[in-house]
Amino acid sequence: MLTLWHCEDARSFRPLWALEELGLDYELKMLPFPPRFSRKDYFAENPLGTIPLLVDGDTRMTESCAMLEYLSLRHAQGRLAVAPDHAEFGAYLNWLHHGEATLTFPQTIYLRYSRMEPEERRQPQVAEDYRLWFLARLKLLEPTLSDGRETLLHTGFTMADIAVGYAIELALHLGLRDDLPPETLRWFDGLTARPAYQRAKARQSAGAEAENLPPMPF
Amino acid sequence: MLTLWHCEDARSFRPLWALEELGLDYELKMLPFPPRFSRKDYFAENPLGTIPLLVDGDTRMTESCAMLEYLSLRHAQGRLAVAPDHAEFGAYLNWLHHGEATLTFPQTIYLRYSRMEPEERRQPQVAEDYRLWFLARLKLLEPTLSDGRETLLHTGFTMADIAVGYAIELALHLGLRDDLPPETLRWFDGLTARPAYQRAKARQSAGAEAENLPPMPF
Repeated sequence: MLTLWHCEDARSFRPLWALEELGLDYELKMLPFPPRFSRKDYFAENPLGTIPLLVDGDTRMTESCAMLEYLSLRHAQGRLAVAPDHAEFGAYLNWLHHGEATLTFPQTIYLRYSRMEPEERRQPQVAEDYRLWFLARLKLLEPTLSDGRETLLHTGFTMADIAVGYAIELALHLGLRDDLPPETLRWFDGLTARPAYQRAKARQSAGAEAENLPPMPF
Repeated sequence: MLTLWHCEDARSFRPLWALEELGLDYELKMLPFPPRFSRKDYFAENPLGTIPLLVDGDTRMTESCAMLEYLSLRHAQGRLAVAPDHAEFGAYLNWLHHGEATLTFPQTIYLRYSRMEPEERRQPQVAEDYRLWFLARLKLLEPTLSDGRETLLHTGFTMADIAVGYAIELALHLGLRDDLPPETLRWFDGLTARPAYQRAKARQSAGAEAENLPPMPF
């Protein structure tokens, strides 16, 4: 049995969405955000105190985009992945890493210094530096989508859409919709119509309600 | 022909090291750091202005850890990668992403606000926040290495060692040796004895000298 530790709409939404896309069975464990502040017992599960955590027997993973690769190749015969001999293999891998390493981390700094830190530790200059950094890093995404395509790759919907799509979802939670370019918004809005995306949303809502979790800070 | 755009000892050292490990032919293009400040013409190659850039025919990649997967699976029959049916597949993928997304990005914030920004924009609190963030994120690495192993996976040296090893290399460039835990240092020092690591170092030195590049700021 696969077990996923998750906070509502945090980056652990990536593997949750992927589990629904692949139709895999899993147990969902919901936590308040960030768990390292209010759920010290969680350090026994994950020494980093971060989400996501995916447990599959002896395998324990903490990186959301690595989980996308793992779930597809280990549990779904490569469905929603791209094979090494495919013309879009390099692009596929690049988007998988780009979604987190380039497009999500700057937003976490913006979030931290504009909202999460106590007033006296907030850093408006730094928050603005990384809001602009994030927007400047959309320069691969927007031209790629400008031909009207509905998925990042010509081959169709893949884990790349989940990896990068979550970065856009986070930007919307952070109130950056007006900063986002039009093709990026068009593509992302299309993704949210997918039944698996909507099932993942419903599943996390039910989980948060069952655990009586406080609302997320973003 | 593979072409890699690189700055000395920057994260583009990952694919450079991997190219040497795999014994592939490649052209190395050296740039001053960061290229977006002093080499505006580079934006025509990579709209982000970042390094690395790997070009292989129509494939253009910008994410250093994605390149590790690509080079192995596309050009070396999976050498130095781990197959999906292997017991360490999940761990392998997790380290590949962890090296950049979790262990490198906090160091770039430390570097930026302690050294790269002009004096009046430096932010000692933020630099310190992310120095500590980085050190706290070593909590997966140090226990893994505490059994005396020489590679992250039992199966032997893989791209995971390059992905995470570069994060430790960067920490040493940033003067954090005294902050690093002992097993992490032991493992990393062992990696630097590899002939391919040393060839990559020599190749970048020769390239920087040929281009008469200024010294790196770290």
